[in-house]
This record gives sequence, structure tokens and C-alpha cells, in this order.
Amino acid sequence: MPKTMKAMQIARPGGDFELVERPLPTPAEAEVRIRVQACGICHSDLFVKEGLFPGIAYPRIPGHEVVGVIDALGPGVTSWQPGQRVGVGWHGGHCHTCEACREGDFVNCVEAKITGISFDGGYAEYMVAPAESLARVPDTLDSVEAAPLLCAGITTYNALRNSGARPGDLVAVQGIGGLGHLGVQFAHHMGFLTVALSRGADKEALARELGADHYIDTASGDGVAALQALGGARVILATAPNSRLITALFSGLSRHGRMIVVGIDNEPIEVTPLQLIAGNHSLTGWASGHARDSEDTLRFSALRGVNAMIETYPLEQAKAAYERMLNNEARFRVVLSMNPTSN
Amino acid sequence: MPKTMKAMQIARPGGDFELVERPLPTPAEAEVRIRVQACGICHSDLFVKEGLFPGIAYPRIPGHEVVGVIDALGPGVTSWQPGQRVGVGWHGGHCHTCEACREGDFVNCVEAKITGISFDGGYAEYMVAPAESLARVPDTLDSVEAAPLLCAGITTYNALRNSGARPGDLVAVQGIGGLGHLGVQFAHHMGFLTVALSRGADKEALARELGADHYIDTASGDGVAALQALGGARVILATAPNSRLITALFSGLSRHGRMIVVGIDNEPIEVTPLQLIAGNHSLTGWASGHARDSEDTLRFSALRGVNAMIETYPLEQAKAAYERMLNNEARFRVVLSMNPTSN
Amino acid sequence: MPKTMKAMQIARPGGDFELVERPLPTPAEAEVRIRVQACGICHSDLFVKEGLFPGIAYPRIPGHEVVGVIDALGPGVTSWQPGQRVGVGWHGGHCHTCEACREGDFVNCVEAKITGISFDGGYAEYMVAPAESLARVPDTLDSVEAAPLLCAGITTYNALRNSGARPGDLVAVQGIGGLGHLGVQFAHHMGFLTVALSRGADKEALARELGADHYIDTASGDGVAALQALGGARVILATAPNSRLITALFSGLSRHGRMIVVGIDNEPIEVTPLQLIAGNHSLTGWASGHARDSEDTLRFSALRGVNAMIETYPLEQAKAAYERMLNNEARFRVVLSMNPTSN
Amino acid sequence: MPKTMKAMQIARPGGDFELVERPLPTPAEAEVRIRVQACGICHSDLFVKEGLFPGIAYPRIPGHEVVGVIDALGPGVTSWQPGQRVGVGWHGGHCHTCEACREGDFVNCVEAKITGISFDGGYAEYMVAPAESLARVPDTLDSVEAAPLLCAGITTYNALRNSGARPGDLVAVQGIGGLGHLGVQFAHHMGFLTVALSRGADKEALARELGADHYIDTASGDGVAALQALGGARVILATAPNSRLITALFSGLSRHGRMIVVGIDNEPIEVTPLQLIAGNHSLTGWASGHARDSEDTLRFSALRGVNAMIETYPLEQAKAAYERMLNNEARFRVVLSMNPTSN
Repeated sequence: MPKTMKAMQIARPGGDFELVERPLPTPAEAEVRIRVQACGICHSDLFVKEGLFPGIAYPRIPGHEVVGVIDALGPGVTSWQPGQRVGVGWHGGHCHTCEACREGDFVNCVEAKITGISFDGGYAEYMVAPAESLARVPDTLDSVEAAPLLCAGITTYNALRNSGARPGDLVAVQGIGGLGHLGVQFAHHMGFLTVALSRGADKEALARELGADHYIDTASGDGVAALQALGGARVILATAPNSRLITALFSGLSRHGRMIVVGIDNEPIEVTPLQLIAGNHSLTGWASGHARDSEDTLRFSALRGVNAMIETYPLEQAKAAYERMLNNEARFRVVLSMNPTSN
Repeated sequence: MPKTMKAMQIARPGGDFELVERPLPTPAEAEVRIRVQACGICHSDLFVKEGLFPGIAYPRIPGHEVVGVIDALGPGVTSWQPGQRVGVGWHGGHCHTCEACREGDFVNCVEAKITGISFDGGYAEYMVAPAESLARVPDTLDSVEAAPLLCAGITTYNALRNSGARPGDLVAVQGIGGLGHLGVQFAHHMGFLTVALSRGADKEALARELGADHYIDTASGDGVAALQALGGARVILATAPNSRLITALFSGLSRHGRMIVVGIDNEPIEVTPLQLIAGNHSLTGWASGHARDSEDTLRFSALRGVNAMIETYPLEQAKAAYERMLNNEARFRVVLSMNPTSN
Repeated sequence: MPKTMKAMQIARPGGDFELVERPLPTPAEAEVRIRVQACGICHSDLFVKEGLFPGIAYPRIPGHEVVGVIDALGPGVTSWQPGQRVGVGWHGGHCHTCEACREGDFVNCVEAKITGISFDGGYAEYMVAPAESLARVPDTLDSVEAAPLLCAGITTYNALRNSGARPGDLVAVQGIGGLGHLGVQFAHHMGFLTVALSRGADKEALARELGADHYIDTASGDGVAALQALGGARVILATAPNSRLITALFSGLSRHGRMIVVGIDNEPIEVTPLQLIAGNHSLTGWASGHARDSEDTLRFSALRGVNAMIETYPLEQAKAAYERMLNNEARFRVVLSMNPTSN
Repeated sequence: MPKTMKAMQIARPGGDFELVERPLPTPAEAEVRIRVQACGICHSDLFVKEGLFPGIAYPRIPGHEVVGVIDALGPGVTSWQPGQRVGVGWHGGHCHTCEACREGDFVNCVEAKITGISFDGGYAEYMVAPAESLARVPDTLDSVEAAPLLCAGITTYNALRNSGARPGDLVAVQGIGGLGHLGVQFAHHMGFLTVALSRGADKEALARELGADHYIDTASGDGVAALQALGGARVILATAPNSRLITALFSGLSRHGRMIVVGIDNEPIEVTPLQLIAGNHSLTGWASGHARDSEDTLRFSALRGVNAMIETYPLEQAKAAYERMLNNEARFRVVLSMNPTSN
């Protein structure tokens, strides 16, 4: 067992990625240590990098799309074993005792921890996580493949399967990026009439390959009119963090249609009472899910061959990898690869 | 049978109410004629008075909270009989053949008629209505009592019973006016922990009398903080047509809470993605209902003693009555009374 | 226009199929005439053949899986045009005025008509049907292909899409016959973890080809144990009309699981209170759907390539075709083909 | 602090109640000790008395409708304080780590503990319970009043609020006994059109006093016909453990109606496929709830004045009290009273 590990930390808000040697962390009560094999880079790692989230203690190791092998158990952990391959996503644990937890609504725990924000994340060779944050990873999924499913995947999968849309209903996925390219695949495999919306004609071929039945180029025409020509959307999954676009697209909903927002923009979305009342439309949001939701996401992806398009980098190149993600140069998810399985 | 009837018409957009003598209308295929006994005055009669709704043919007789007795049947009407007491609300009929109708979603019929807008309404001694717009009125409800339930009543009753809130959940009714004073009663009798919100301390006594378990004076304090002190609202029924207030109150929702808008303001409501995503909040709207929904509203009101507070005026005083409504002087619904039952 | 048509009628309960020459029927008010191109033979045609349904007027032409081209419109039909290709399923029309219809619950209309039972069906060159019973047929579906989707298809599609199961949930389809071989395909394309159950090992290959992820041979082992080994079924769609098998399989449900019965057996299904209470299990049934449901079924099938396995016969061989169906010799649906499109 | 406590134990299956002196129990990790003030006697205490439940370790103290004051905390309990008044119901704790628990479905925990069965219950001056089994008791509820709400109350309240019935819908409560007399009150206060069914005319006055809008005497007439004359029941809550009666009443459901079974009989309920398919009927069951559900039950009861009718006995008379319950002589719930609050 090594005594230290390599990690990429952010020393202060706005600071740069630093490759550091850290003592191997020890799992406390109800925690496990994971030998990390892969960690996805997510747009919300920006929160750590730039200090945009309240209460982050620095230095902090980011990363909340983590897959690895359990390496050591803290006291009191009985339901996991060293050697099991597990994933840790955005939801990094809950208190079990608040009102939300006592109702089983763990995602809304008042003391919910966020991986890579409340505690050190997966940009490292090892990490420690609460036992309740762990998701089993199916054998048929590679660790690198599985990593982006733990945030980009669960968010779109879980939003769609809980959207109220029934098979055959028109579901539109707005944005073909890190989240959207997974959303289109999930929508297809859930039996929705799948419509992809993005800016530019160049993404049409990819959208159709991912499973879109229709493609709408919102740069060259009116997305609302195009959706209404198809009958209107029972669900629009808005993956691009752009409130102005969401506002503009709202009237593309069908009767009883729901706009589900998963991308965060600080600007407000604007809808008039008449837009809500006529047609019984809704505007709502969705935030990832808990560890069992992660397992469902992984199993569904393995079952139906849903795959993120991935660029892989070694831990040492986290900075460059992060910048490709930030500049929308990556297609579409970036994953750091550590500790090859063969070790 | 008289050959003419008295009615209050609006001759042109912005025109005044005129008492006119009109030929007794004849019901066409699938229509019935009603001898009107009572017609509520609703804020949306403003659409006719001021010409704010597209496509109104003038002169037009307003009124969509109509109760009366069937007087004559048009050809092909077999499911109604002269002498039956019926109500007609906002939803004035549907086409039976569009996609919405073929799914039973009559409210969203692409050719839905609106009583008193698409055809002459109940500010008159007689009116003609499509058979599918008729609701039976329980014997235990007086016609004047029943009238406001056909728009103000159905809107709040139907929004609340379809809100997803379960008995015991906190339901807030924002606004104690024509809709809100009914909404509080319905919320109470549906078993919700009922919170009324209004501006000023003077409405507290009334709110509690109507069944509110808690009262929040939004003029003297922070409505969001007051709601959160009670645990947050599973549902906020926003009855006041004021998008600024709705925007301000949105964060008073609990986990999975829904803001349901029933009052129309032209200004947009503004919510940020984070307000939607954190806590899985929703913003939606609700529009009255069809004739069976009206029957359910009337039966529930009769069963549990839900009553609108009403001021009654003769048809001839429609102008004065309308102005009391428009100036928020009425407490809380104004009803025109015609053709006393004893006739 | 011909003055007569060929049809296969049943003259009396228990009578045999007779090829007859009948006058071309004329559509009445709100009806259309269809030049039939294909009509599926369904197990419930037995009701007509043997007189098992109350109130059938003989002679009667069976057939409720009808696809053809509109040939003539009765008075008052404005939403359909001659030349349109349409389907007619089990639900043969409704009254528009009973309580169920006024709520949009057409399937439960108190005067619901059944195609081929309440009026002459599709074992004929022409038939007349109520306008509200018509479903549009997508251009990409052949008439013979579309026919069985109008009863076997809609029943399984509609039961599954309304089952409450979410994508990724385990859905078991019991029986690989006329309904079940479609149910497996629909379950697969709706994203369920699809388990097929049938008697004998010989159906496994077919089940997997149709999209089953797992196959359980109930002849060689315990279906309940096999389902529980997979985690239990969120939904079991019981397509075989065998109450004893359904009773035996009930404990294969997972927490909150639902057994949905679509096949009719006169024997009762038996469940104990404890089987219902522990795990919050449900037993329910599902009956086809209305014309819009048929359209949804056809569109989904066209979109995802769901196909019935079909044997085709000319009208004149209806008797032999019916007997193949009745003796479970057909694989899996039998369709009569009339009036080739090229005519 | 006393070193011993009095308790009523059952020494062996079929043994009698014995008043014993036991050492004061000590709360282990994640447990609390409660000074019991009241404990309801429930029909399912028969399981302990007669040894009908697998795996009970004897001697055992029964009792799962417990209200008392927290007296001592075991190690690791941080969310409760001595002096808080709490209730413990049937659901006596869960493992936090099985699949059901990880989904928040605590009631279906594979290692769920049952109070008074898995561990000693409330027929005693003190008891120890897992922290996750505790429900807060509102100040306005007396401990004796609150006790029966923790099993008879939560079962009916939780079944009804999750039944899918909407306010105004017809909900029938079958049986006016320990569960049913609470079910009628809950149904009334939830806004349902409440129908009580029982055997004999003598219970009508009580049923109406409890809030029933209609009463059906199933001894003197056909319950199904009487329900259908009222339109059929959207929900029938079957509280009497009598599968034959439930079988007989099933056809009293309306379209989309649900029979919800909460009383356990070993005989099966029998329904035919046609009874399920025609009208889309369901048969299901419901089992109490978790600690948060108990809190909701208590709060709702306090808010709306739902009260069990209670006979109170001192701990020493547990045997006589149990026999009154068992012989249906009690009206309607029997509660043991210990350790008066003033102590």
C-alpha cells in the first residue's frame, strides 16, 4: 500500500490546477477508500476552480464522475467489500436524519454532500467517499466509459425516465453537448419520438446517429415553429445552460408539455401566465440523483449500449483536459484515466 | 313563450353596457336554449368589454358563469330535457374531432368555444349553448350560489384536486379575492394544511373563517420566509394576476413544490434554473375545466358547504355591478339575477 | 362502384363461416364506408362464432382488426376524406354523452360499440364504421402489417405505456403468442429490461430475437423464483388467458409490482391479502384503447419497426385461417387480405 | 432512575400474558429508550400471543402503538433529545443499506424490524427502539389519543392519501371497526364523498357521525348494487380481514376503481380477468408506513380532530383488555396507559 498519492488540486478560488503529492487518505466511520481508475471532467468543476460555490474549503481536489475499486473500508461499513468496482457522482452522501432523508428523498437532504466540493473528489489516485454515495458498476462497462454516466448520464437519464412522457411521445433534447448527446441516446432507447435541437446544420448527422428521429437547426430557423410542426413536445430537456434559449423555446411544448431544465445559467427564464395556463404547460428542473439512480443509469447504459463520446487524458494533463471541456472543444466528455485496472 | 328577451350587450370594443331587446335565440343542431336565472360577473368579462381577446364578433353579450333552466332543445339533442337546471362556464364547447378531443382533452380543443366570447353569454334572459357545455346543478344549490362556481370555483377546485398535493400537505393560496376566497375553502375541505397569503392584516380573520390554518400578511413581511418557516409549500395556488408577486413568492415552495398560476398578467414570471433544479420545483398554470369538471365542482361545493361570498344585482344594473367587480369593491363575486325560479 | 360485396358471415351462434354476397352497405350519419384491404383474425372472434357475447344480432360479419381506404362518407362527417387509409379496432365507437364520454374516457362509454360484434366487421370487402372509431395509418405501414396492431398491438402497447414502469425497470411478458410476441417487442423498444416467459425451451431463441433480455421457461422451472432471481418484476403483462398461471406467477412481482391481465379466462385469479400488502403489489387489467391509442400504436410500430409475425389468407379461406388461429398453429397472427391496394 | 420496569410478556407461543419485573433496558448504538405513556392493543398482537409470525424470540413483550418520552440515548444518536415525546408504530426500523432502503423505500427494507415482534414493544413501562423508528408527537395530542394512530391510524390515512382518489371522488370504507372508524374520519376530512359499509343498521348513526355521507348496510342488501347506485367507488378501503367479503364487493368499483386491502385474512381474494379488464379495475394492498408517515398521520389528526374511540386500561389489565379487542367488544381501540405524564 502506498503512503502517498498523486492528485490535482486547486489551492484557492481562481487558482490553477497543481499536481501534488498527498498522504493517502484514511476512510472514517461509514466511509470507504477508492483506488480511482477514471474521473470525468464536468462543467461544474468550474465551481471549484473559480470558487463559485459557497463554503468550499481549499485546497480542494475536484471531480464527481469517479469510477474505481474499493481499497479500504472505514469502521462500520458492512455492505461493501474491498475489490468491488464502484462509482461516485455529484450526490456525495446524506445525513439519514433530516426530514428529507427520513422520507427517502436523499437528493434533497439538508446536509447533502457534493463530491469534489464538500470533500475531495476524483482528480486523484485515491479518494474517500461516504458509503451511501457508492454505486455498483456493471462488469460490462469499462471504468472510463462509466465515469461520465455518473453526472452527465444520470442527470439526463433520470430526468427523462421521471418526465412523465410515455413511449411514443415527442421528447426534444435541446443541445448536443456533454449532456445532450447522452440525452438523445437515452430518449431513443426509452422509445420516445426523439427530436434533437442544436445550432447549426453540422450536428444533424451526429444527432441522427445517436438516435434522433428529427433534427432541428435552431440557428437557421424557428425552433418553436419546427416543434409545433411535429405536434409540439411533450417534454423538452434543456441541456444547454442558456436561459434566453429556454425562454425562446418554451412555446414549442404540446398540450401538457413540460420544459425540464438541467443546465444552470444565472439569468432567469421568463414565461407569461398565459404560456403556462393555455395548454397546461410546466417549467421545472432536475438535479442528478442518488447512488441507486446511478446504478440504474449504468445498468440501462450497459443494457442498451448508451455510450458517452469520450476523450481520455492522464491525470497529469488535467489542466489541458479541463480547458478543452471549458472551451467546448471536447467531443463530448473528457475523462482522466488513472491506475489502470491491470495494476 | 316570449319572442324577445332583455340582454346587456357590448356593441364594440371599449363600448359601454347597453340594455337591449333581442329576438329570442333559437338553438341550432346540438344546442340548447337556457332561461337564465343567474350569471356571475368575472374579471375576464373585461376581454369582451375592452376587446382584448382576438376575434370577438360585436355586438356581444358577455357572461360565462351562467345558471338557468333548459327551455328548448335544438335538433339532435337527446341527452338533455327541458326543465333541467344547468350551468355553463368558461369552456363553451368543443369540436369532438381534433386530436385533443379524440383523446378526451376537451379543454385543449383547437376549436374550443368560450361562453360569452365565441357566442353570446349569460348577461341576458335567455342564451343558447352547445349541449356539451352543460353541467347539471345539484338541487341543494341555489342558482345564484352556483353561478360563480362555474368559473372562479371550477378553476380553483380543479387546479387543487389535480395539483398532486396529498391531504396534510401544505397548500398556500395567494390572494383572498374572487378566486382565492374559494381556493381557501376548497383547500381546507380537501384536507390540506391551508395557508392564506394576502396583503394586509385585515384579511386574516376572514381567511381563518374560510378555513385557513395559517395567514401570512405579505405587506408586513417576507412571504417566502414565512412559508419556509412552516416547512415550505407543496403547492402555491397563485390567484392574483400579478407576475411580480408570483416571481417573488416562488422560493416559498418546499421540495418538489409546484407554483400553479391561474390569474393572467401580461408580464412574465421569472425563475432561474437553480430555483427550478434545487428542490425539483415546478411552475405551471391551470385553466378552468370542462362540463364534467363543473359538475364535480358543484357537487363538492354542495357536499361540503363551499360558498362564494356574493353580491347580487338585477340584469339592468350590470354596468354598476361590473364596475364594483373591476374596482375590487365587491366581496367577492358579483352575480346578476334574472328570471326568478318562481316564474 | 359495385352494388354488392363479398363477406364471410356467421348466421347463428355456433354456425360456420359462410361466404355471402351482400348489398354494399351505406354509411349513415357520422359513419364512413371503408374498402377493406386487410382484417386480422383475433381469438375474440370466437365470441361471434360461438355466440359467447350477449346481444349479438345474427347474421354477423366478424373482424375488428381492419385496415382499408375510406370509400364514402355518411352525412355530417367532415373530418375524414375518401381515399384516406384508416384502421378500425376493437373499440368501435362511443356515444359522446354518457358520463364516461363527457370525461373523455371513451373506452368505458356505457354504450361503447365493438367492431364486428355491435356492427358488421372486417371479414368483408367493405364495411361501415363510426367516424370516431377511425385511426389514421402511417404510409410506411403496409395494410396487412397494420391490421394485427389494431387489437393485439394496441392492447399490449397501451397496457405497457400506461403501466407505470420506467425505462430500465424489469417488465415480464408472460406468453409468447399473438399478443405476447408483440408485447416483448414493445417492452424492448420502450427501454424496459425485458423478460419473456413461456412454456418450453424452444421459444427462447425467438423471444431473444424479438428483444427479450432474459427468457424463463416456465415448463422446466419455477417462474416466480426465476423472476425473483432477477430482482422481481415491476410489471408482469399476462397475455395468456390462463388464470391458474397468473395466480401462480403473482409472487414474481418486485416491490410495488403490478400484474396486468389482458387475456380473458373465465376462472378467477386468486391472491391473498398478504400477497397484496407485503410489497404493495397490484393486480389489474387492461382493455385495448380508442382510435387515438390505435394511431399511437401504429406510429410507434412504424417508428421502431415493431412487426407482428403474420400468416396471410384470402377472404375466402377465412374458415381455415380462423381454425389455425384457434388451434394455436399460426405464428402468430392471421390476416385476411382483400382488395389489393393496386385496385 | 429505576433499575427495573414492569412489563407484560408472552413467554412462549400460545402462552398467556405475564406481568414481570424486567431490568431496565439499555439503548444500544443508534437506539433510544422511551418511558412509555401509552400503548395501543392491536389485532396483530395476536401474532406474538399465538406465535403466528416466523422467527419471534420468546419471551417477548408485544405492542406497536407506543407513545412515550425519550429517556436515554444510545451511542451515536444525535437527532433526538431526552424529554421529546415520540411514537413508535409497526415499522420498527430499517437497515439503510439494502436496495429498498437505498431507494428510500424503508417500509420494504429486507431487514425491516417490527416493533413488539422483532424486539420488545410497548406493553411495558420502558422500551428501546431504533432511532429511525421514532415519530414526533404534536403537543396538542394526548399520548393515549396518539397511540392507536400509530398503526390503525397510519394504515388508513396512508392508504387513502396514496390511493389516487381525488377530492370529491367516492371512497368507500368497508368495515366500521378499529381501522374503519378511523378510515371514515380520514376519508371525510380528505374531501372524499365518503361511503361507509358495515353489517347491520345499528352502525349507521355512528358512521354518519364519523363523517360518512352515505351508509350501506351489507347485511340487509347488496353492497355492490348500492355502491353502483351511487356511481361506483373510485376506491374501496377494505378494513375487515375477510377475503370472502372483499371478493363479493369487488364489482362495486367505478371505472378505474381500486380495491385497497389492509386487513389480513389467509383465504385468497378471487377476481376474474373480466372484472379487472372491463373498467380498468385494480386490487391492491397497503401496509402502514414509516416514521415520517406516522408524523403526517398525527399532524393531520391533530389538525382536523380525527380521534380514535378508545377504551383505556392500566398495564396490569392487559390480558382483559386484549380479550375485549379480540372478541370485538371494544369500541374501537384499546390503549394501555402507563407512567402518567405528570410523573
